[in-house]
Parts: sequence; C-alpha cells; structure tokens
Amino acid sequence: MKAIIVRRIERADEETIHRLEAFGVATIHEAQGRHGLMRPDMRPLFPAARLAASAVTVLCHAGDNLMIHAALDVCRPGDALVVAVKSESRDGMFGELLAVSCVARGVRGLVIDAGVRDSSTIAAMGFPLWSKAICAQGTAKSSAGSVNVPIVCADALVHPGDIVVGDHDGVVVVARAAAQDVVRQAEARETRESSTRDRLRAGELGLDIYGLRARLKELGVEWVDAL
Amino acid sequence: MKAIIVRRIERADEETIHRLEAFGVATIHEAQGRHGLMRPDMRPLFPAARLAASAVTVLCHAGDNLMIHAALDVCRPGDALVVAVKSESRDGMFGELLAVSCVARGVRGLVIDAGVRDSSTIAAMGFPLWSKAICAQGTAKSSAGSVNVPIVCADALVHPGDIVVGDHDGVVVVARAAAQDVVRQAEARETRESSTRDRLRAGELGLDIYGLRARLKELGVEWVDAL
Amino acid sequence: MKAIIVRRIERADEETIHRLEAFGVATIHEAQGRHGLMRPDMRPLFPAARLAASAVTVLCHAGDNLMIHAALDVCRPGDALVVAVKSESRDGMFGELLAVSCVARGVRGLVIDAGVRDSSTIAAMGFPLWSKAICAQGTAKSSAGSVNVPIVCADALVHPGDIVVGDHDGVVVVARAAAQDVVRQAEARETRESSTRDRLRAGELGLDIYGLRARLKELGVEWVDAL
Amino acid sequence: MKAIIVRRIERADEETIHRLEAFGVATIHEAQGRHGLMRPDMRPLFPAARLAASAVTVLCHAGDNLMIHAALDVCRPGDALVVAVKSESRDGMFGELLAVSCVARGVRGLVIDAGVRDSSTIAAMGFPLWSKAICAQGTAKSSAGSVNVPIVCADALVHPGDIVVGDHDGVVVVARAAAQDVVRQAEARETRESSTRDRLRAGELGLDIYGLRARLKELGVEWVDAL
Amino acid sequence: MKAIIVRRIERADEETIHRLEAFGVATIHEAQGRHGLMRPDMRPLFPAARLAASAVTVLCHAGDNLMIHAALDVCRPGDALVVAVKSESRDGMFGELLAVSCVARGVRGLVIDAGVRDSSTIAAMGFPLWSKAICAQGTAKSSAGSVNVPIVCADALVHPGDIVVGDHDGVVVVARAAAQDVVRQAEARETRESSTRDRLRAGELGLDIYGLRARLKELGVEWVDAL
Amino acid sequence: MKAIIVRRIERADEETIHRLEAFGVATIHEAQGRHGLMRPDMRPLFPAARLAASAVTVLCHAGDNLMIHAALDVCRPGDALVVAVKSESRDGMFGELLAVSCVARGVRGLVIDAGVRDSSTIAAMGFPLWSKAICAQGTAKSSAGSVNVPIVCADALVHPGDIVVGDHDGVVVVARAAAQDVVRQAEARETRESSTRDRLRAGELGLDIYGLRARLKELGVEWVDAL
Repeated sequence: MKAIIVRRIERADEETIHRLEAFGVATIHEAQGRHGLMRPDMRPLFPAARLAASAVTVLCHAGDNLMIHAALDVCRPGDALVVAVKSESRDGMFGELLAVSCVARGVRGLVIDAGVRDSSTIAAMGFPLWSKAICAQGTAKSSAGSVNVPIVCADALVHPGDIVVGDHDGVVVVARAAAQDVVRQAEARETRESSTRDRLRAGELGLDIYGLRARLKELGVEWVDAL
Repeated sequence: MKAIIVRRIERADEETIHRLEAFGVATIHEAQGRHGLMRPDMRPLFPAARLAASAVTVLCHAGDNLMIHAALDVCRPGDALVVAVKSESRDGMFGELLAVSCVARGVRGLVIDAGVRDSSTIAAMGFPLWSKAICAQGTAKSSAGSVNVPIVCADALVHPGDIVVGDHDGVVVVARAAAQDVVRQAEARETRESSTRDRLRAGELGLDIYGLRARLKELGVEWVDAL
Repeated sequence: MKAIIVRRIERADEETIHRLEAFGVATIHEAQGRHGLMRPDMRPLFPAARLAASAVTVLCHAGDNLMIHAALDVCRPGDALVVAVKSESRDGMFGELLAVSCVARGVRGLVIDAGVRDSSTIAAMGFPLWSKAICAQGTAKSSAGSVNVPIVCADALVHPGDIVVGDHDGVVVVARAAAQDVVRQAEARETRESSTRDRLRAGELGLDIYGLRARLKELGVEWVDAL
Repeated sequence: MKAIIVRRIERADEETIHRLEAFGVATIHEAQGRHGLMRPDMRPLFPAARLAASAVTVLCHAGDNLMIHAALDVCRPGDALVVAVKSESRDGMFGELLAVSCVARGVRGLVIDAGVRDSSTIAAMGFPLWSKAICAQGTAKSSAGSVNVPIVCADALVHPGDIVVGDHDGVVVVARAAAQDVVRQAEARETRESSTRDRLRAGELGLDIYGLRARLKELGVEWVDAL
Repeated sequence: MKAIIVRRIERADEETIHRLEAFGVATIHEAQGRHGLMRPDMRPLFPAARLAASAVTVLCHAGDNLMIHAALDVCRPGDALVVAVKSESRDGMFGELLAVSCVARGVRGLVIDAGVRDSSTIAAMGFPLWSKAICAQGTAKSSAGSVNVPIVCADALVHPGDIVVGDHDGVVVVARAAAQDVVRQAEARETRESSTRDRLRAGELGLDIYGLRARLKELGVEWVDAL
Repeated sequence: MKAIIVRRIERADEETIHRLEAFGVATIHEAQGRHGLMRPDMRPLFPAARLAASAVTVLCHAGDNLMIHAALDVCRPGDALVVAVKSESRDGMFGELLAVSCVARGVRGLVIDAGVRDSSTIAAMGFPLWSKAICAQGTAKSSAGSVNVPIVCADALVHPGDIVVGDHDGVVVVARAAAQDVVRQAEARETRESSTRDRLRAGELGLDIYGLRARLKELGVEWVDAL
C-alpha cells in the first residue's frame, strides 16, 4: 500500500451528525445492526466527553505521529481525527500541542488506538478524546503513513468521511451512506424503548414484555421451587 | 448441568447485611480469613458505588442476557444480581432498561463478570454496579442458562443467598451461614485497627507495633548504613 | 542478592524537586531524552494526584508487604516510597494504616508495581499514589526483601535517592545526578513549546513549524486530491 | 476460612476415570452440559499430555508452595493435584523435585493456576501437567493454606475427589457424583457424532444434518447471489 | 448491517495463490508495503501449518458458530474460511466435525479470531488453522451473521476472495486485485535479500550494506570506546 | 540520556559461562538469591533452545531495529544480543537476515523484549532466541538508541557484559562480578538437591525433609480426617 494523503473527502451533513450525537453509542450500535463498534479498550479521557463528527482517518507507524501532523493540514472545522497504528502501541502519540492545534483548526475530537499524554491539560481544555492508554512516552516523526484512506481502528473499519460517535460507552462508526437510515432506525428504537421503559418502571418484567417465558420453555429451562 | 431457575432461596437478615456494608470490602475479606474476593478486574461504575445485599445468582451464555431477564422474576426487593458468564466476555449484557427494571423491582445493585452499557445513564441513576468492562456491544436473548445455582463469578464462588459486598476496592462474597461470625471478626478487627491507627498517627511504626524487627532478623535481613 | 536495609541514602535538594514537580511527567520524560518512564499500567489513585520526591526503594516478595514496613523506618519527611515486587502481583500490598503511617512520618507519596486497598479512604486523605491495581487482597509479612537498593519498578530502573515524579500521565524517574540538568532541559523545552503553542493557537500547523512537509516528500508520501 | 488439611476424601472408581480419559475434554464438557471447563489459559506442558484422576485440591498463598508439600502427604497413588492460588500469580510454584516426589507417590498429574519450572526436565519425565505459565521464579514455604477443601481453579469449581480430565484442549472437572452419568452422555454423544462424521465425510453439510437452513430463515438471514 | 450470505465471489487464480504461499507471510507483508497483517495473537495449531487460499469470509456472533456451517455451503475446493466474531471470544467455535467437513469439501484451511477445540485430532489430520486460543468451550447455533461480506479479522480487513496466507509467523491478507503486483514485489525483494544474505554470510554488516552508519551520525548517536 | 554506542565492554570468562549454562535458569535464579529473572513472557523460539553468553545490550525505539544493526558491529564471537525497547512492542524487529548475520559474526543467541519474524527459518537454523512474540510486522531503521548501556529488559536490569542464560524456563541475568560466586552457590544447591532427589524418589516427603510439619502447626493449619 502506497503512502498517500488524500486532500478531499466527502463529509456527512451536520444535521445528521447532530442527530447521531444525541442518540449515543449504544443506541446507534443497535440501530445499525450491531455493527461498527470499536473494542472496549477505547476509553474517554474524561467522563463527560461526547463526540460526533466526520472522520479524517490517519494511519501511523507505531511510536510515530508524523501523519497526525499531516492530517491536520486536510482537516476542516467540525472534523474528528481517527488514528490507527500499523502495529500495537500505547505510546503517547497525541499531546497538548496537538490538542491546541486541533482546537485552533476547529477539529472536534480524537479517537486513537494508542496512547495520549498531557492528559490533565487536555481534559481541562475539554477536548474530547478516546484512547486505549494514557502514557507520557514520546514518539518520533520519521515514518511514512497515510491520511484519508480506509483504516481499521480498534477492530472497526473506518472510511474517510464516516461519522464517528463517542460517549462514555465507547466509540461507534457509522458509514456516511447509511447515516440517515441509522438516524431513522435509532429514532424508531428510542420510541420503542421509551414505551418499554414506562412499562418496566411500572414493574412489568422484560420476561413478559419481550415474550421470553416461551423461549425459556423451548430451551428446556425448568423452574423449580428450591434447590 | 441442567438449566434451571430456582424460585426460592434463603436470604441473610437485613441487620447483618447492613453491618457488613459498613465494614467495606477490605475489612470483610480479612475478617473471613482472606476468602471470597473477586478478581480486581471488577470495578465500580462510579467511585461512590456501595452495595451489600443477598445474591440472586445468574449463569449466562457469553453474549446473551436472557437469564438476567429470567432472574428479575425471582428477585425480591433488597436483592443484588450476581451474573457469571459461561465463557469470557466483555459484551454489554446489562443496560439502562435492565437498570430501570432493577430499580422498579427494588433490586439493589449488580455484579457482572462481563460488560455493561448505557453507562453514563446508569451512573446518573446512582444504580451501583461492578463489571469488568464498559462496552456498547449488544447481546442475544437465545441461550439457556440458570438462576439461583452456585456460580463462579470473577474467581469467587457464590451461592444463592450469599451476601455480596462491593465498594471502591472491589467485591467480596460472604457465605450466608458465616455472615454473623464475619461481622464479629470484622468488629474485632476494626477495634484493633483503631488502636493501631492512633499509634501510627502518633508516629510509631508498624515495625514496632507488629513486632516485625525480630522477624527481619530471623529472615537474615541485614541493616547497613550505606551501600 | 542478599536482603539488606540501607539506612542512609543521598537525596536530591528540595529546590530541584519542586521545580521538577512543576514540569510534569511528559515534559521531564522528553527533557531527559525519553528515558525513565514507568509502564502506563501505573495509574494515579485520584485524578489530581501529583508527586515529586526522593525515592526510598523497596523490593518485596509478591503478596508480602513486610519490607514496606521496614522502609518506613528509614524514610525521612519528604521522601516517597517506590515499591517493586519480585514477581508480578496485583495484591493490595498497601492500605489505609500504611497510608496513615506515611502521613505521620511525612512520606509524600507512593509508587507501587502492585495493588492497593482501602482506596476510597486513601483518596479521601489526599495521599498521592500510583499503582497498577486496586485490590482488597491482603498480604503476608513473612518474606525477606530489601530497602534502598536499586530496583526495577514497572520497567524503570530506580536508585535510592532518585527523584520520582508522578501526575495524571504516569510516573517518571530522574537520576539524582542528572536532576539539575533535566530541570534546565525542561525549562528550555517549555520555552520552545510556549512559542510553538502560540503559533499553533494562531492556526499555524506543526507541519510547517517543524518543517515536516519536506520529510513527507523524502519519505515518498504523495498528496492526491481524492481517492 | 480456617486453614485445614483434610486427610480422607471420597474418590471416583478407576473404571469411570479411565472411561472419562478416553473421551477427552471437549466431549466431556459437552456431555455434562457445557460445565466445569477451566479457562483456556491452562495449557499442557507438552502436546501429548493426558490426564484423568481424582483431585486432591490445594489452596496456596500466591508465591508460596508450602501447601503443595502438605498435599502430597494425603495423596494416594492415582490422584492428581489441583492447585489454586489465593490471588493471581505466574510464579514457578512446582518444579522438578516436586515432580519426582509426585512420581514416587504415584500422583498422576498436576493442574495449577500458576507457573511451573524445570519445565524441560518435567516434560522429559513425561509427567503431565497443565499450568498458565512457565516461570523460573521461586516461591516461599511460609504461608498457610488448605488441602482438600472446595477450590476455584481457573474459573472452575473443584471439590476434593472430583475427576479432573486434561488433554490438548485444556482441563475439565467432573463432579464425582455425576461421573457415571457423564460417561453415559459422552457415549451417546460419541455415537451420534460418529454417524454425523460419516455423513460429513461423504460431503453432506452440517447445515442439512442439523436442520440449520430453517433457522437461518427464521433469523432473517438472506441469501444473495453476489454483493 | 443486514445478515446476508453471498453465494458467489471472485477468487484469485491458483497460480498466483501458489506463488504467494512460497514467499511466506513476512515477505508478503513487506512486499505489499507492510499492510494486511493480522495481530500476532493468531497462532498456527501446529508448527508446520502453511496456507494460501481465497477467503470465504464469515461474521459470527460471539460464542455461536451457526454462520460457519452456513459458509461451508458456499465454499469451493481450494477456499479458506476466515472467521471474525462480532465481539471478543476465545470459545472453541470450530472442532473436529467441522474440520472433517472442510476436508470433505476441499476447504484448505481456517483462520479464526476465536478459539478451536479437538485440537490434537485436527493437528493429526494436518488441517492447517490459525486461531487465538485453544478452548473446549462449546458454542450455540442460534444467532445470525453474514458470509462473504467484508470483515475485520484480528485487525486486518478481509474482503471475500482476498488471498489469506498463513505460516509460523502469522497471517497476512492480500487484496485480490493487488495479488499479482505483490508477487512481483515479493520476487524483487527475494532477489535483493538473496544477495544481501550472501554478503551477510560472508561477514559484512547490515550497517554497511544498508548505509546506516551515516544515519546514526545524522541522528547524533555517538561512538565511545568505553563507558 | 544521550544515544551512544560503547565499543568495548568487559566480558565474563568462557569457563564461567559454560558452567552457568549447565545449571540452567531455575537453579541460577535460586543460586543468586532469586534475582535477575526476566518476565515469563519471554519464551524460546524452539523447545531445545539453550544459551549462556556475555550480553551486548541494545536499546531501541519501538518498531525500529536500527540499533540492532549497530550492535552487531561491536559484538565479538560468543556474545549474545539483549534487546530492550523504549516502549512496549511486539513488532518483528529481528528476522532471518539478522540471524544470518549473527551466525556469521559468531553471535550465540538473542534475547528481545519484542517480536521476531521468519520464525521457522530461524528455528531451522538452530539459532537460539527468546522473545515475547512471533510477528511478521516489519520495522523502521530511523530512530536513535544506544548500544552497551545498562538496560531494563523484560523487568531485568542488564549491564553490558553480564551473563545472560536462557532455557525452556525463560531467561536469567547474572552480573559479571557475581558470576563465579553464583557458580559456587549453584553447585552447592545441586549437591543438596541431588541428595533430596534421592530421598524423594525413595518416597520420603518434602514435608519431612524440609521440616515443614512444624511450620504448618505454627501457622495454625489443622489436620482433620474428613470434611
């Protein structure tokens, strides 16, 4: 694979992005058929971190953040950086200066399958990010990689311009072409869940609401009074 | 092992449960001879989470939460759900709707050797839970399992009706039959520790209070002035 | 290796220690040539934990905290305990009573490549510590080890009297002899970064500030308009 | 929990044990309802290792093998040692001398949720063992534990006298009382599988033999000719 | 994402596949620009395992192998099964009967980001497979998934019909369209390496052959006679 | 820390090295007071791998093997390369060509806290190595590091010229100055063990040979006939 930097990508419309943000990761994951979720190792830097944005994708050599710098050059306000590494690393590939630069360029957040540093400063800035480690280990700027090519980040396939959504449950990726349909499915799901929530609150059981007693019987599960 | 749901279990008395809650996990673990502690992978969803309750035990297939729904049917107010999985999983087997249902039925908390989702909503509800992951991954409702059978959860053996105690240090299980004795041992330990704490605060050393200087000598440890 | 307790060690001067604390872990790690960083598994007990102090080093048998007690005997006010274990362990080797004793003796903080317990009490005391686990598992006081010998703690070599610095990014070790030079390098780095930060804030890119466009070309990275 | 050594346990009859050995771990696990399997971290020391024997259970402090020595005193020829540790450890708690002693006393094999050492010598002796690590780290003989009490070993509950079966797939535990029934179920399973195997060899598909095409339809899976 | 089974895929020609097999994983990985490698957790069942084949891709629910059965229906002789799981699992999703069926249908090997069982029988059959665990844990056949859709397996993106190559170094994926070019690059690399190998064998150093002395100087590395 | 390459180091005498090799890792680890053992993640490439040699130490940037090439320039016949990485990595930093070069220069073996590739070729060459992974991932040659400085490799401190010993139990480091004393201690240990082995073979118990019955009593362990 050649090392390239793609300048122009298609992005999702902001309206769709905002609606996805409101649903949150768990609902979107369900709405699109339980697809696109990153590994649970990806944790937010601070509990209130929330993100929904078009992804500028970055593929770096482990321990080298040269391509993150290159990616900032093609970012537009409202984008998020989504960074994959060619082999496993927890090095601190992103720190305060890059966060300052992101804020200056209007980059909305970061998802990185590696480590970050200057963590308390970045948290104080309120810049939302998801990473698999916090680690002060510095990185080189010597190895080629790519920007805006399809990447695998924390087990999820991300195409440039896909919408990446993050909250306290983790990170999910929504394909740009599917985004509006996912919004519709998520709305339908929320409507259903809202009614279910009311019934559960009133003391009904999921066992009855979802018709699971029959399934338990089919599966041969037996009720006994005592062991 | 047949898949069964046991409707009736013996529970510990509330007085004993409340006293155990006050001691906390580390003290109880010591008081019962360093026994019954779950693996340290089990972390509370929020720092202030506290729990002491009789365990309704649940054994699920990995990636399938059918039996948690079944368990809610046999819970009584004041119980805790303790969920083991037949093979390792970090899937989000428990989410907001189940938490709402728990609250509606008076279930006091959750311990699960898997993942949970809707994590910020559940934390905002103040519903105490301990899990080994936060993960949006949804689960099926298709596979049989059991409720109120002895389970191994995060390396600890839990019988239905045992008392499960959780705090920021993790989760410990107290056998129902031993609970009153554990309370007595924990009280004795706290009394001893209270006196030790005063002496340490005044600047005495554990080395002297516990008579460890002699032990160091027996072990052949040498004091030297400088290297 | 014989088991010994070394009573007297050289310590860094307080002025140097205070200046190191102000820089923080990531800056110090860079200032000393990316050296001395502990593994990212070492996490602070609470987000605001900060530490800079001369290290009293401790080498323990796994699951045995006898030598931590021995180390307190040779600590002076202002020291930090840095504890390594002869083989991997997440046991709770340090708890509230030891923390009380540390505070009484003026010990400033703890770094331990194992677990701690009584975690919410210690956090409430504001005693700063870094560990790889929180775990209630109690430990023995039966096995010999050493105090104030060179140790390997979480992949970092620590000599007695080295300065250990901890913050939300992790823990870094500064050799006593190198400390003043590290302070100078860190100052120079902060000055450089301050100017860079201003330029980034104004919208300039790291790509231009660090001259990375040329490097990308040398590496054969190609810019394309679209995929 | 008090530290005790139980001298006498009930054992399974040799006929049953031999029949279990012949079936192997995967078949037994299925035959008893997918129950009793240890975590896959438990690996045989050499590929041809095979074991079926009554378990003498041992509970040790991490990094301390005193209780393995104690257990040998109550073993009978034909037994297997099954060793759990009170907290996680990969230390080499079992080495050549203990293996020599096992062979001298007729102990048939070892299952240990920790490490072993002198690994090539033990492999050359052909003494079958399953462990989660190979590690030269020596251990103390200073801390109390128990022999022939119920233990949790690598996530499986083991009662003294249960039958432990090991092969290249791992380790499974069969409750003594259930053993004959498990033999019957395993025989039935093997008979069924034998017929299935013939059909598969002839080119039939599991999809047809198990009637799974209907299930795929129920689940809404669609066949398409091309993407 | 809808659950679908795609019947017809394009495959690479056998000539190209055979040539890729001869190069091995490390050479191919380099030849295609260090791309397409699976995580090193993927290990061969036996040391001599070798595979190169067109991939039939399978996406399963964790702990459920229904879709592997479905995939066998669309496999042709010479294919390999490449199985991803929707969330992490080490369950034994593939065992002897499936291996028998693979052999009967001419399926050449298996790559699975989960566990396998009946491991010694399958090794004795010489059926090559790569997995991240050996584990007897049985699985359900109840949850939908897909066959011949793009999947992420052990961090590598695999399209149906891509060529999957496995040896003792792991598994690499070659895009079908790029395969002939990869063959050419690999040939060129082998030619270069052959000449380098001769020079190294004669005692020349990589430092000189690759011109690295100059690079060390540029990087400021200093030679000193002694420390 | 400056990046330097130290040309000349003191080495241990061959006689001592050969005697250490004969004892093996577990005995040496005990003989030197349970010190100097590397983490058990370090595994030999093939079961029969054996090594004892003076260490040429190498410190590399993660994912970059430039300094291994530099180290070969200062190796003498009979040395071993011991490679640490500045941050965690499983990349394949050492492959067939480097192994060929090692053999050509008389380098006796390799210990690397990272990955290796071309694993079957190197195993066929019989070149002994210990690594924490097998991984085809290629590495850069762009980042500075050091040769023949003290390093921490897999938790063990290694000075240039220390003796590194590897076998199926792992890797242990013997300080050059201590080597002759370690040989004496190891001899004494082997003599003692030989006599113990004979007694164990004759059916005596460690419990009696080591006088552990008294210790069990002191610890309050109770013998009971049955549970």
